[in-house]
Amino acid sequence: MALGAQQIWDDYQRLRQTVPLVHSLTNTVVQAFTANALLALGASPLMSEVSEEIDELVEMASALNLNIGTPTAPARAAMLQAARAARRLGRPFVLDPVAVGATRLRSEFVAELRAAATPTVIRGNQAEIATLAGVGWQGRGVDAGSAAPDLENTVREAARQAGTTVVATGETDYLCDGSRLAILSNGHPLLAKVTGTGCVVSAITAAFLAVQPDPLAAGVAAVSTMNVAAELAAAHPQVDGPGSFQVRLVDMLGKLDRALLEDRLTLELK
Amino acid sequence: MALGAQQIWDDYQRLRQTVPLVHSLTNTVVQAFTANALLALGASPLMSEVSEEIDELVEMASALNLNIGTPTAPARAAMLQAARAARRLGRPFVLDPVAVGATRLRSEFVAELRAAATPTVIRGNQAEIATLAGVGWQGRGVDAGSAAPDLENTVREAARQAGTTVVATGETDYLCDGSRLAILSNGHPLLAKVTGTGCVVSAITAAFLAVQPDPLAAGVAAVSTMNVAAELAAAHPQVDGPGSFQVRLVDMLGKLDRALLEDRLTLELK
Amino acid sequence: MALGAQQIWDDYQRLRQTVPLVHSLTNTVVQAFTANALLALGASPLMSEVSEEIDELVEMASALNLNIGTPTAPARAAMLQAARAARRLGRPFVLDPVAVGATRLRSEFVAELRAAATPTVIRGNQAEIATLAGVGWQGRGVDAGSAAPDLENTVREAARQAGTTVVATGETDYLCDGSRLAILSNGHPLLAKVTGTGCVVSAITAAFLAVQPDPLAAGVAAVSTMNVAAELAAAHPQVDGPGSFQVRLVDMLGKLDRALLEDRLTLELK
Repeated sequence: MALGAQQIWDDYQRLRQTVPLVHSLTNTVVQAFTANALLALGASPLMSEVSEEIDELVEMASALNLNIGTPTAPARAAMLQAARAARRLGRPFVLDPVAVGATRLRSEFVAELRAAATPTVIRGNQAEIATLAGVGWQGRGVDAGSAAPDLENTVREAARQAGTTVVATGETDYLCDGSRLAILSNGHPLLAKVTGTGCVVSAITAAFLAVQPDPLAAGVAAVSTMNVAAELAAAHPQVDGPGSFQVRLVDMLGKLDRALLEDRLTLELK
Repeated sequence: MALGAQQIWDDYQRLRQTVPLVHSLTNTVVQAFTANALLALGASPLMSEVSEEIDELVEMASALNLNIGTPTAPARAAMLQAARAARRLGRPFVLDPVAVGATRLRSEFVAELRAAATPTVIRGNQAEIATLAGVGWQGRGVDAGSAAPDLENTVREAARQAGTTVVATGETDYLCDGSRLAILSNGHPLLAKVTGTGCVVSAITAAFLAVQPDPLAAGVAAVSTMNVAAELAAAHPQVDGPGSFQVRLVDMLGKLDRALLEDRLTLELK
Repeated sequence: MALGAQQIWDDYQRLRQTVPLVHSLTNTVVQAFTANALLALGASPLMSEVSEEIDELVEMASALNLNIGTPTAPARAAMLQAARAARRLGRPFVLDPVAVGATRLRSEFVAELRAAATPTVIRGNQAEIATLAGVGWQGRGVDAGSAAPDLENTVREAARQAGTTVVATGETDYLCDGSRLAILSNGHPLLAKVTGTGCVVSAITAAFLAVQPDPLAAGVAAVSTMNVAAELAAAHPQVDGPGSFQVRLVDMLGKLDRALLEDRLTLELK
């Protein structure tokens, strides 16, 4: 099926009908927001990074979400174990390489994780994805005029080097599976004023991977769901800042319909 | 005193007058929601799972809430220590056996905890309580038609096997202290769309145990407080999904009055 | 520059223009609220307590916030390491000595931290600051009539003994840098009904220290920002309890202006 509003709507409905169990090993800052976003979307969240039960939990789950935001030693060990279990059991999994490139530990750990199992999707912000493309954390200061073409090439290069589908979210979102490049330009600036909105997109991508085997399509569905929900939340008459925006964003994740997606989706394929 | 609106109202007022200190060792996903719910209710939350100070904190607290949602090795050790301190010091404590039966670790740890000290109340969802009754996690797929009588027997059996008061929350809530069975059928479906509402009921039960020595009465007060607050929140004109529902649920936990409880309580005793 | 509305407004604007990176090692209960408050204020939050990357993160950050609310062994080691890095690199840092005096562990750890590096500001509630002044946790039960003069002397004594700036928040806030004493009496009682509002003041103080080298001025700006935002939130027509108050408090942290500060600031200097 072609990427677009009909595909997203089909995936969104299938997700809500099947209520996939999504196992997240994610940073402690965003756990509650992530779980509530998954519930509002229609998925079922599960969170534990306890090594004695990781294999059982990955087996129970339909998809896995690994986020390195607070990479303590036990969390790193549990994420490696979960990635290996996902590979062995054939579960799709998303890697969110939070602040990769910012510290040596994070760069080394992302390399170790990718060596253990290739993520189905890597979702990061533009600085993180640039790091994966070898441009490095320091290279994020691209000036606005030249940003768009650079980002396209950067995301293509990151997908090539990672050997998997890459999703770079920001004011404009770029998704690449190594051949196709999808560009989404909706969303809202308030997304950048709430902690964990990127982490939530990663978790939602995992939820869509449970019902959509094409990683690029799952990424497009996840990012678009978040973007459209953000636009609706920002337009809500009672929203007047990042606190009230976050509340309505959670509300809206469960309220999309086909007409809304048709109206608001901005998808460019290259 | 007979169970019912007058008893709940008396306990609710006494709780708010005495502001009991409730020590929770709970999963990282629900800590903020739990603390805010306890504050809104009128209790004082305390959270630490550091072994060097557990005994002092249990001694300071009026009641204890143990939740195994993220059962890391340090959390398990701290919970065992806290349960032993509660037994030694005579503090009431609630056990929330999150996902017991889903993994071997959780089943073994719940057995270990119960061997260390008998909880004053065990509060779980229906699948968890069924596991305690020996029906097992796999047995949760009871069809709707036969659910009600099965659940009554399951909760009675769980209370018998656990040798303590058991609270099984869900669309209908069943509470049993081994002889009396209480059934509460109010509440709202949005409770299932917000992470940690069950965990919060466990914490609120601990708060009521600080002022009400009868575990069944404390459970009835806690579950009814949450159910009535949920009904009020869901009916709030600005609530339009799980995000805004959670916000108003916290507001409403501090706003019950006797007339509301009389109007809305649905208590059946068997 | 004299302390007051003009200074606060200048600092607030400078903070929002420079978007300082604030590294918080804080308890898991308040991490999300703290990060969202910093984002709403205009700062950039960073949270990790992983020893392998602490030194790099402190170097990247403009200010540090250490909160001992959940003092696990790894958290304590990471906080000591961060305090030493802050001293070595000249970064300002705030210490929030949560419940110091309540357990032996906390009192000993605060002493150890202070021996490793003198905090730029210590921010606590009145019981915590009284403990630092040697009055002790048990001494908090000061009766209302004699509270004000006692608190002034207590905070002066705490600043003297700690050898640094001390901020004691409560219904009235007292700040002392060893010579000047500032008293702020605005704010709102709902601040005491939301978990982590004190912890957020500490984090905001760190953010102001990134743009204001005078610790007392940074403290006055941080406490006043929170107090005025709380007054605005409490007066919001849709606020009806601690849940909705917290949402609007986050909204309001980014909405201050000079006229509001002039109108609402209540600063007494002694």
